[in-house]
Amino acid sequence: MKVELICIGTELLTGKTNANISYIGDKLSTIGLDLCLAATVGDKTENIKKAFQQAIERSNIIISTGGLGPTFDDLTREAVSKVLNKPLVLNREVLSTIAQHFVKRNIEMPKNNERQAYIIEGARFILNEAGTAPGQIIEFTKNKKKTVIILLPGPPREVQPMFEKIVFPYLKKYETGFKRSVVLHICGLPESKVDEKILPIVEAERKLEAENVTFSILAHQMIIDIKVDVSGKDEMLVDEILGNIKHELYDVLKENIYGEDRKTLEIVVGELLTKNRKTFSVAESCTGGIIAHRLTNIPGSSLYFKQGLVVYSNESKVKVLGINEETLQQYGAVSAQTALEMAESMRNIANTDYAISVTGIAGPSGGTQDKPVGLVYIGLCGPNIKEAYKFHLYGARVEVRQRAANQALDLLRRQLLRDARIVKK
Amino acid sequence: MKVELICIGTELLTGKTNANISYIGDKLSTIGLDLCLAATVGDKTENIKKAFQQAIERSNIIISTGGLGPTFDDLTREAVSKVLNKPLVLNREVLSTIAQHFVKRNIEMPKNNERQAYIIEGARFILNEAGTAPGQIIEFTKNKKKTVIILLPGPPREVQPMFEKIVFPYLKKYETGFKRSVVLHICGLPESKVDEKILPIVEAERKLEAENVTFSILAHQMIIDIKVDVSGKDEMLVDEILGNIKHELYDVLKENIYGEDRKTLEIVVGELLTKNRKTFSVAESCTGGIIAHRLTNIPGSSLYFKQGLVVYSNESKVKVLGINEETLQQYGAVSAQTALEMAESMRNIANTDYAISVTGIAGPSGGTQDKPVGLVYIGLCGPNIKEAYKFHLYGARVEVRQRAANQALDLLRRQLLRDARIVKK
Repeated sequence: MKVELICIGTELLTGKTNANISYIGDKLSTIGLDLCLAATVGDKTENIKKAFQQAIERSNIIISTGGLGPTFDDLTREAVSKVLNKPLVLNREVLSTIAQHFVKRNIEMPKNNERQAYIIEGARFILNEAGTAPGQIIEFTKNKKKTVIILLPGPPREVQPMFEKIVFPYLKKYETGFKRSVVLHICGLPESKVDEKILPIVEAERKLEAENVTFSILAHQMIIDIKVDVSGKDEMLVDEILGNIKHELYDVLKENIYGEDRKTLEIVVGELLTKNRKTFSVAESCTGGIIAHRLTNIPGSSLYFKQGLVVYSNESKVKVLGINEETLQQYGAVSAQTALEMAESMRNIANTDYAISVTGIAGPSGGTQDKPVGLVYIGLCGPNIKEAYKFHLYGARVEVRQRAANQALDLLRRQLLRDARIVKK
Repeated sequence: MKVELICIGTELLTGKTNANISYIGDKLSTIGLDLCLAATVGDKTENIKKAFQQAIERSNIIISTGGLGPTFDDLTREAVSKVLNKPLVLNREVLSTIAQHFVKRNIEMPKNNERQAYIIEGARFILNEAGTAPGQIIEFTKNKKKTVIILLPGPPREVQPMFEKIVFPYLKKYETGFKRSVVLHICGLPESKVDEKILPIVEAERKLEAENVTFSILAHQMIIDIKVDVSGKDEMLVDEILGNIKHELYDVLKENIYGEDRKTLEIVVGELLTKNRKTFSVAESCTGGIIAHRLTNIPGSSLYFKQGLVVYSNESKVKVLGINEETLQQYGAVSAQTALEMAESMRNIANTDYAISVTGIAGPSGGTQDKPVGLVYIGLCGPNIKEAYKFHLYGARVEVRQRAANQALDLLRRQLLRDARIVKK
């Protein structure tokens, strides 16, 4: 069963990021349908027609997004009509729902929206709750091959509900098997080390010539993601294989894995703090509020996150955080000593169980021979810890800052795990 | 001149959004090269080979991203080598720069990174300053058609500098026309108002039937972007038309436009603070560090940004910021009175010219009949201002927070403009 996606819209080729490919590809994979190609084409009838013609030759399921709007540059309906040699017919039911859309908003329906009520002859239409462009499902047989074309609008907020409610249940009849995936997130190990550790597991699967298992690794801002996909005909077997591989990966990577799938470092840290009934505060210099920002993105973070200080100037480090001027003079703002004092002082001021501090040189300027851009100290204070850690982080300013924040959150996470064990003993 | 893009990576078909298509398409369009197709394929040698084979048949310039990493699922080099029937040869110069990359980081180079030093025979390589995978430019003639294949790595932070420095100047020899674009950013006006104000300008262009001018509007987190594209054969004429349209847009929107293109609200606020030689501090409750985070993303922000407080708990509002317990009891943490006290107190503690405070209900829980989710108060104190502003913001938690941060930064921006005029008088 070959599945192909055609994304239509000049804007997708000239500046707008397209979220439909990854969304639809991900959804399809869960029922064993692998997107083998996603073509992005502009609003030109010739290019759209060619994309559909080629797709019909090689694929069974063709999904398109975009080009169903009311304006002159929305050409998908006409292009597909020509390729299939089937006329477009006005559908009264669709027309009336489009009209209602405008009535609700107390706006007169523009004449050109009528174009959206034209449906390929014999097609089933999909109503659009978030917009005016209906989708279409067109089934046909070509060269004895059963084929389906599914036309969807472009905006993800319209595509996603239509896909969930109609397209996905519809496609379940093509279900060729099952696919389960997991993404394991790792912080605190370099990519090469992760690669080395998991290689025997990857090689073992390869020797089995298990084509239904794929591994992929992606590194970003000191975080490494390992994605494992397992597919097959037998749902229970698929689950079992994935379970076994996950088990093996946890065996070699242990606590270096901080979470799975949509779990972020801040979610995991928040969960550990909640579970251990501990509170947290943070004093940020070079990360300038990133850690506070990320932690407070999580609903309910007020339970454990008490206070953040962004002490960007030396003056504020002394005045607000009470750092010794001598420490600053003797060791500098970017030093293990200052980081440690910052964390200790933050913990006292906010009266929290844990406190973290970050001080470093994010760049692009401010670096010296001794203290280059990317040098970052992280201080961590808690019931069983009082430590400063040194890092050399790479990348541009924004990256150094995000990497430092990831390292800080990961240090806290590892300490929370250690402390939970101490309590248990 | 046909240009085609091939994006390689299973992750792009199963969950990861791809920023390379829009970036590369946009860049190409500025020199009149239109991307006619962008194909996204997974990490399977057969699919990658097929994509290159088809592209070579129909296009003159083929750019690919991804699949150049050191791991087992990086297959682009090998696939292209097979398609072109040209061997991969070890390049000592590339190998030494990859080795240096690890020396700098004080890490031993993993054996598998050596794979990245293999170059298609006769190719020109492009060094990668942000990673280890070099790019490659391969020129060849097939069926009397001159063709070029340009291989780039996948991560946008590696692609973009390589494209800017090497690929774009290289492609200029294929230049077929000119395109100039501008994006104007607006905050503090609803989309319908912006639409109303610019409609006469859009209609006038439409009446001229100027097919080479397009307008598009995009709204996100209380910010409205107007994009204007002008294309043509005559570079000076293109510049002149764009200049005139921009002039007309500024005439109707005035100071509602806070910046152009890559200018963010925080960059503009930073520039105004620097220009006016003023300092700033921020006390954040519901935005939890976003404003501090965004301002300190800007290099050199330590000049004007002195301190941030994330006072997430009522306790910290009283203890650290010195908010009257009576105010909190009488009006609540989310009130104009508290917002105003927070801003005043922040300004005094940090001893800055301006201070902003944000307090509100970001949700998903915590809302009441009187104070629903999305209710946000922003306090602003400065030499000529002492005011609290009330907003009803919509969206999920993360959106309410970003919208509040945008509103706060825009309030400060407008005040900085007013104050600069007062000084001038």
